[in-house]
Amino acid sequence: MNTLPADSIGIVETKTAHFDTPLQLACGRSLERYELVYETYGTLNEQRTNAVLICHALTGNHHAAGWHEGDKKPGWWDAYIGPGKSIDTNRFFVISLNNLGGCDGSTGPTSINPDTGRIWGPDFPLMTVHDWVESQARLADHLGITHFAAVVGGSLGGMQAIQWSLSYPERVSHTAAIATTPKLTAQNIAFNEVARQAIRSDPDFRDGWYSEHQTLPRRGLRLARMVGHITYLSELAMGNKFGRDVRNELNFGYGIEFEVESYLRYQGKNFSDRFDANTYLLMTKALDYFDPAGEADGDLAQALTPAQSRFLVVSFTTDWRFAPSRSRELVDALVLAGKRVSYANIDSSYGHDAFLLPHPRYEAVLGGFLRQAGDTLGLAASTTAEEASS
Amino acid sequence: MNTLPADSIGIVETKTAHFDTPLQLACGRSLERYELVYETYGTLNEQRTNAVLICHALTGNHHAAGWHEGDKKPGWWDAYIGPGKSIDTNRFFVISLNNLGGCDGSTGPTSINPDTGRIWGPDFPLMTVHDWVESQARLADHLGITHFAAVVGGSLGGMQAIQWSLSYPERVSHTAAIATTPKLTAQNIAFNEVARQAIRSDPDFRDGWYSEHQTLPRRGLRLARMVGHITYLSELAMGNKFGRDVRNELNFGYGIEFEVESYLRYQGKNFSDRFDANTYLLMTKALDYFDPAGEADGDLAQALTPAQSRFLVVSFTTDWRFAPSRSRELVDALVLAGKRVSYANIDSSYGHDAFLLPHPRYEAVLGGFLRQAGDTLGLAASTTAEEASS
Repeated sequence: MNTLPADSIGIVETKTAHFDTPLQLACGRSLERYELVYETYGTLNEQRTNAVLICHALTGNHHAAGWHEGDKKPGWWDAYIGPGKSIDTNRFFVISLNNLGGCDGSTGPTSINPDTGRIWGPDFPLMTVHDWVESQARLADHLGITHFAAVVGGSLGGMQAIQWSLSYPERVSHTAAIATTPKLTAQNIAFNEVARQAIRSDPDFRDGWYSEHQTLPRRGLRLARMVGHITYLSELAMGNKFGRDVRNELNFGYGIEFEVESYLRYQGKNFSDRFDANTYLLMTKALDYFDPAGEADGDLAQALTPAQSRFLVVSFTTDWRFAPSRSRELVDALVLAGKRVSYANIDSSYGHDAFLLPHPRYEAVLGGFLRQAGDTLGLAASTTAEEASS
Repeated sequence: MNTLPADSIGIVETKTAHFDTPLQLACGRSLERYELVYETYGTLNEQRTNAVLICHALTGNHHAAGWHEGDKKPGWWDAYIGPGKSIDTNRFFVISLNNLGGCDGSTGPTSINPDTGRIWGPDFPLMTVHDWVESQARLADHLGITHFAAVVGGSLGGMQAIQWSLSYPERVSHTAAIATTPKLTAQNIAFNEVARQAIRSDPDFRDGWYSEHQTLPRRGLRLARMVGHITYLSELAMGNKFGRDVRNELNFGYGIEFEVESYLRYQGKNFSDRFDANTYLLMTKALDYFDPAGEADGDLAQALTPAQSRFLVVSFTTDWRFAPSRSRELVDALVLAGKRVSYANIDSSYGHDAFLLPHPRYEAVLGGFLRQAGDTLGLAASTTAEEASS
């Protein structure tokens, strides 16, 4: 691309933070040292009060907005982060990182284990949402940020936003939990388990040591992604997009006959070329484990009691992965716990994927919530805009 | 089991019919000769007017009711077929077959291709619902049955029942289409495609020639069945059955942690031991291809015009594989086409699986429809009962 859109944050740079204080993990193990890659958009104000943390979902990463040199498309949430956008980089200093255990630069299964000199592979410890929040808190410390104006995330990212409000109530003013759930259903876990079995039963998985065997469990990753895609799209979106359109004549064989087959095979292939299998397994487990109410005898309202932030909960009408009813459970528990919460159920035909896509009402709702965060903290939008452009 | 229940049809016998008139198939190929295995329950009356055909679903077979010597459980629809049951064997002569292409005795991929002396394997032609109806009509001819009091089926079996009413309008009095759909959605096809890719990408599949290589694509079959099971159960049923029950303590590894994982692995393993992969592929394709409206420019009511039978359409409230809305499409089109149709949406928490399970209202509805069929045809229930017990 030659010309950046006027509301783009522009070319962005990826940074790396090194940590060498051991991080104690929920699984009982600890990481002695690790790195987190991250990007920042906008300018941190003098009082260090305008930071917003973005938490990513299953296969996301630190590159949430702006452009890398030579890229054909911007970061995954560019529609929502930038000058004048819902998460306004004229006003806020936005931080987005690749989670620990990821495969896009932060320490994870594809990194070298310093104790062995060998790739971590399947020996990398399983992560929980709680662990991620701890590692993100250290990144905040590293950047001199004691307090977030907002923590924002969709799907698995929404779980991290919720956990932030519970682990560090005094460090978060506003929490936006989008297209998420207070815990997975048995069906959600079942889909994750199919994806895991697909990967783990691929002979090229080699018990997770595929890189040492110079293989890649592509078949398993393809299948995992295909299953995932079915759950990300609404039945309606799939119907609208593909219907029963036959690609060619029916060939009465196992080549492509229906458009949706072509789409799934393409998505699967693409994904298997870019994503690490051990990371995918680990991410699905973090989803399964998230259950704040579990720590309070199943009482979600009780579990949410420590939170001090204001909440925005957003769901999408055709999302059947984390349906609106799951968001309402969260809203009900927040209300019961006496928290300040706004809820929007956004009309969209795109299913779970909707949280990543442009949508006027969704943009307005998220933008309004962030504006309130800025106003509450006394961040002058215009002044900050001038700071940003100076 | 030592004592058969009083309303059981008792010990049943599997028979085989041989056919050597070539069967022209939708794919353009033809089968020169083939066998169909079947069972019959009850007694054919002198006028040969009391026959009922049962059509099976994806992984079903001819053993719909009664017991085989040594079995620990009866046929798959024993709750609905027997003396005094919804499909009353005191009144009706019930026929149930294993479809062509199946793996339970009828000619299919595991049979020997007489032209080559080699197992058919992946060379077995793909089947359509239309082809099955043709082969079933020949079985009826073979048994001297020119007319069915009713053709009954659930899921893929319901598609066959519908097709019977269209292919042979004058041969069917009553059609019961249960938990079915006039055609698959893109999402349905997508799930089938994941199952197919799981099987076909298993290195042990060997392009379908696994038996010649003395391998079995167990991994693929396991995954296919796991995906299938998620779609057969309602989210509610899964939640009620498993919730988030952890089997043991969380082990922070990839062993069994949640009950639903254990269930899916067990179902997958079981299935991979008993079902033929090429047959599974073929059955999913038959589902994808079914689309009677497609032959009438998408006008389902137009496509249903030839039917002369009365119809019963049954759906289940929590079935998301073939949702009640799909049954209502069928009902609406039947009404528009001027057909006589009854519709029942049965309250059940069991999802698609509900069509196989005992349920008082469902039993009453199906029983009432069959009773009407018997009365319309002047079959005296009591007389037939005496015939059966004589």
